[in-house]
Amino acid sequence: MKEDILYHFALGTGTHDFPALFGDVKFVCVGGSPSRMKAFIAYIAEELGLGSQGGDYPNICAGTDRYAMYKVGPVLSVSHGMGIPSISIMLHELIKLLYHAKCSNITLIRIGTSGGIGLEPGSVVITRQSVDATFKPQFEQVVLGKTIIRSTNLDEELAKELMQCSKEINEFNTVIGNTMCTLDFYEGQGRLDGAICLYNEEEKLQYLKAAYDSGVRNIEMESSVFAAMCNLSGVRAAVVCVTLLNRLEGDQISSSHDVLVEYQQRPQKLVGYFIKKSLGKV
Amino acid sequence: MKEDILYHFALGTGTHDFPALFGDVKFVCVGGSPSRMKAFIAYIAEELGLGSQGGDYPNICAGTDRYAMYKVGPVLSVSHGMGIPSISIMLHELIKLLYHAKCSNITLIRIGTSGGIGLEPGSVVITRQSVDATFKPQFEQVVLGKTIIRSTNLDEELAKELMQCSKEINEFNTVIGNTMCTLDFYEGQGRLDGAICLYNEEEKLQYLKAAYDSGVRNIEMESSVFAAMCNLSGVRAAVVCVTLLNRLEGDQISSSHDVLVEYQQRPQKLVGYFIKKSLGKV
Repeated sequence: MKEDILYHFALGTGTHDFPALFGDVKFVCVGGSPSRMKAFIAYIAEELGLGSQGGDYPNICAGTDRYAMYKVGPVLSVSHGMGIPSISIMLHELIKLLYHAKCSNITLIRIGTSGGIGLEPGSVVITRQSVDATFKPQFEQVVLGKTIIRSTNLDEELAKELMQCSKEINEFNTVIGNTMCTLDFYEGQGRLDGAICLYNEEEKLQYLKAAYDSGVRNIEMESSVFAAMCNLSGVRAAVVCVTLLNRLEGDQISSSHDVLVEYQQRPQKLVGYFIKKSLGKV
Repeated sequence: MKEDILYHFALGTGTHDFPALFGDVKFVCVGGSPSRMKAFIAYIAEELGLGSQGGDYPNICAGTDRYAMYKVGPVLSVSHGMGIPSISIMLHELIKLLYHAKCSNITLIRIGTSGGIGLEPGSVVITRQSVDATFKPQFEQVVLGKTIIRSTNLDEELAKELMQCSKEINEFNTVIGNTMCTLDFYEGQGRLDGAICLYNEEEKLQYLKAAYDSGVRNIEMESSVFAAMCNLSGVRAAVVCVTLLNRLEGDQISSSHDVLVEYQQRPQKLVGYFIKKSLGKV
């Protein structure tokens, strides 16, 4: 191609110098919410001693409201919205961006929120395997109308390194466990409080307990395609999500705003510490 | 439930008076981009003679960055992000919101963007049926790990009324056709320019031509679950999307910013005219 337009980033090789803008990137952190990813870049800048004078970080994707992207030193922070399709678009364009920028040895980490199973709210789960709604470690990708099965394995060494970081921080409960990735927040996760619900509490609990017994410790909506695409692209990747509630005890996220904000900082703290340590700054 | 927290709207029945805030809503328009849905509320306010003095419309969901919501008179405008999971979360919470507000006789219209097949870019497609990647008018919903098939029929009368409106405006090409809804923008839609691509141009064109022959005129990523959930909830619904390119001629969205902005106003114009006409203001 003469030019590659990354439409959902509002960036293109014909209009932007990718090696100059992104060539030094080594760590990419992604998460659903644009404001959380902005908060993360400010946090990591401070941690790495790269804080800007005004404390403000421009949105590199300011030309669109599909995603937001921020950069400081070797760290890129990108939002991906909610659900497999939304993160999949972002990852296609991110992987092309890193390729055009000639980046190498990238570590890609999703820092997100999730519902926990059998864990105290606020616990952090580092994903061993991302599993589907039948607890299998696979992702079904539809290509030209045909379904292909892809592996959702994540980097075992990286998960262990992150677990070690959490031990060193010693501020919150962290476990390594399987993460169930669903296409839906309500019916797909067995919630009883959606607009549509055709099962009862007993069936819900049976399902969630079966998930727990298979090794699932939390549920979210992006990890399977994230793992599958990182696998195919040869990128070292991890998923680190905080649990906002214990699904065995309820469906609604009813903790106070302040408590939820503090929970959401935990994956940032853990991954921030990991990056510092990787750079020899701990 | 004592209280219902619509977490992704940052609204709750314990903190907000839903009948007072939303009881008069008759038309709900939804679209992917928050800034586009903000532009739509300003446009419809002007059209209905309900424009605010300062011309600004507060975001009702200002407490979160998951979705944006705006209201003027009987019209609610809500963003839904990209993909089936993202719009599905929004629709669950929207349907609960309308229920708590005791709204009745709602018309719900998705105004979006799409890739066209065999149409001049800028053409508007009113969806007859939303079909899956194998061209079947169905949506597979996973519930507690089991797959359920749901119908994706849309309101035929409403589609005809919208077509009549387009004839009366007479400003751009509009057709009624099937809309293919995919889980992915790149591989799922046969694009050759994604980070991962395991097929060639011939296979791509074969697939898109088969889609055209089955009646598909455009491809997007939300209509199937939108149709399925509106069906189940008894809400009169339509999908009106502009085509940003002709997929038989390419994959990249390379029209100029100004041309794309004008294209994106077409569904807004059409649906704005329909609302005015429904309210007897044409």
